[in-house]
Amino acid sequence: MAMYVVGHKIPDSDSICGALAIAYLKNQIGEEAIPTRLGDVSPETQFILDKFGFTAPELKMSYAGEEVYIVDHTEKTQAPDDIDEATVVGVVDHHKLGDLTTSTPLECWIRPVGCSNTIVKMMYDFYNVDIPPAYAGIMMCAILSDTVIFKSPTCTTADIKCVEALAEIAGIEDYKALGMEMFKVKSAVQGTPTRDLVMRDFKDFDMHGNLVGIGQLEVIDLSVFDEIKADLAADIIKLKEEGKRHSVMLLLTDIMKEGSLMLIASDNETIIADAYGVTVENNEVWLDGVLSRKKQVVPPLQDGFANA
Amino acid sequence: MAMYVVGHKIPDSDSICGALAIAYLKNQIGEEAIPTRLGDVSPETQFILDKFGFTAPELKMSYAGEEVYIVDHTEKTQAPDDIDEATVVGVVDHHKLGDLTTSTPLECWIRPVGCSNTIVKMMYDFYNVDIPPAYAGIMMCAILSDTVIFKSPTCTTADIKCVEALAEIAGIEDYKALGMEMFKVKSAVQGTPTRDLVMRDFKDFDMHGNLVGIGQLEVIDLSVFDEIKADLAADIIKLKEEGKRHSVMLLLTDIMKEGSLMLIASDNETIIADAYGVTVENNEVWLDGVLSRKKQVVPPLQDGFANA
Ligand SMILES: [Mn+2]
Ligand SMILES: [Mn+2]
Repeated sequence: MAMYVVGHKIPDSDSICGALAIAYLKNQIGEEAIPTRLGDVSPETQFILDKFGFTAPELKMSYAGEEVYIVDHTEKTQAPDDIDEATVVGVVDHHKLGDLTTSTPLECWIRPVGCSNTIVKMMYDFYNVDIPPAYAGIMMCAILSDTVIFKSPTCTTADIKCVEALAEIAGIEDYKALGMEMFKVKSAVQGTPTRDLVMRDFKDFDMHGNLVGIGQLEVIDLSVFDEIKADLAADIIKLKEEGKRHSVMLLLTDIMKEGSLMLIASDNETIIADAYGVTVENNEVWLDGVLSRKKQVVPPLQDGFANA
Repeated sequence: MAMYVVGHKIPDSDSICGALAIAYLKNQIGEEAIPTRLGDVSPETQFILDKFGFTAPELKMSYAGEEVYIVDHTEKTQAPDDIDEATVVGVVDHHKLGDLTTSTPLECWIRPVGCSNTIVKMMYDFYNVDIPPAYAGIMMCAILSDTVIFKSPTCTTADIKCVEALAEIAGIEDYKALGMEMFKVKSAVQGTPTRDLVMRDFKDFDMHGNLVGIGQLEVIDLSVFDEIKADLAADIIKLKEEGKRHSVMLLLTDIMKEGSLMLIASDNETIIADAYGVTVENNEVWLDGVLSRKKQVVPPLQDGFANA
């Protein structure tokens, strides 16, 4: 019985490239595996796939009765809707431990590093399987994306060493230039429908019984949002109501200035302002130095809800 | 800030030896770590510690405000009572994924193998740290205990290879003889208070909202229970009521005949009989071939409660 390898809903490059790389590895060690995805491929991810000659994994939303290998999350809100009817045989992740549970033993490769693909590289090393150059290329790009070319506070020495090793295997001399090219693709937001932008990298979290959605758009210069910011702000209010969420936040992240403008739609803005120790004006606030949703945005808010 | 490395409540040899071995490894790689335990050391574990010249880790029940590395479980019922007020920095485990969650990224080394100490050996290999002979000895004994000297269906090739490698490091020629010596110590149940026997290797599980306690006593010959079985049966009824449990089961496992006599105290014996497809008489049933609580006893019952 083949297992499906799948990342989170609204897949990012880590989820897509990780699913491809883990499925390849599993097939090499004699375990049949098929990479899949839970949603559309982003322009950034499409750039990576094109660059190294891959087609996107098959779109598959339902996994009841199947064996599933989970990539880049352990939150049920981010997993397939019918994950409880599937058998989770493995997890590769670099986030906090979420509410996913299983009824049988499994393998979990979870490490506090900047990207799931850094852990995938450890798996290749553990099983002593050679990484084909094209796979090294997509794994490397996923790490450059998740770590914002090493600028994110989530980036570790392990991520940097891993990118260097993968760049050599992939035959990429200037990986930072490739990273910038990738973020330029990501910065091209004009002409995209507002809702598509809000949902491009959007994750729901269960914060002590409250559903909180947090989106993030990472660009090279925030000026790309000058003409559409009002539309984005209006849309997250709608999104909050449609999904019966307590709050929706959208992080407009400037990777060169290294900070994020946070747009907020919330039933209780005070809990958010208090979590970050800031004053919110006109439902937005500039968070200097904040690049990482995972490390800088989610934990303080999680604590804020816990103590509320 | 030093981290505490701790196994589950009512610690078994895997929890105690794992805590010692992980703490030593962490200290070797420059992370200060202190092994601790959540309860009394069993006679089997004391035999192992004495054999290789260790004293038991410090007893420590409260971890609020501390960093904790969790061994051999991810169930909150088996973790320190105040685990939600601690920071879980890591997990080594070989069970199904339980309900433990964290608010920050962590490392999880979880594998579907027979013993946590088999995974600890993988960690030593990953960090390229030499295992001192005494540590190899306790790790090896923990694996022989958890796998019932390789007889348990949970035992994998990785466990067997690991024991062979550790035996060589520890300088133990006949590790199976040592394993039998260990199980003889475990079989000496006479003279022990009834409640102590019931609780010696007892785990609580949350099965779809129902608290279910399952104890296990592994012996070389079930005849050691001839005179005390009635007392054990009476005591699990008390234990069920005291702890407001739905069910308490006690597995009397004959490691030579390779099966278990299950004593049952339950609000609904039918759910248990149905889970294993057996007929229960006088609140007990012989389960042929059943050696593993984790693999053969917990999953069918978990499914039974899910479908009830
Ligand atoms: Mn990721
Ligand atoms: Mn164990």
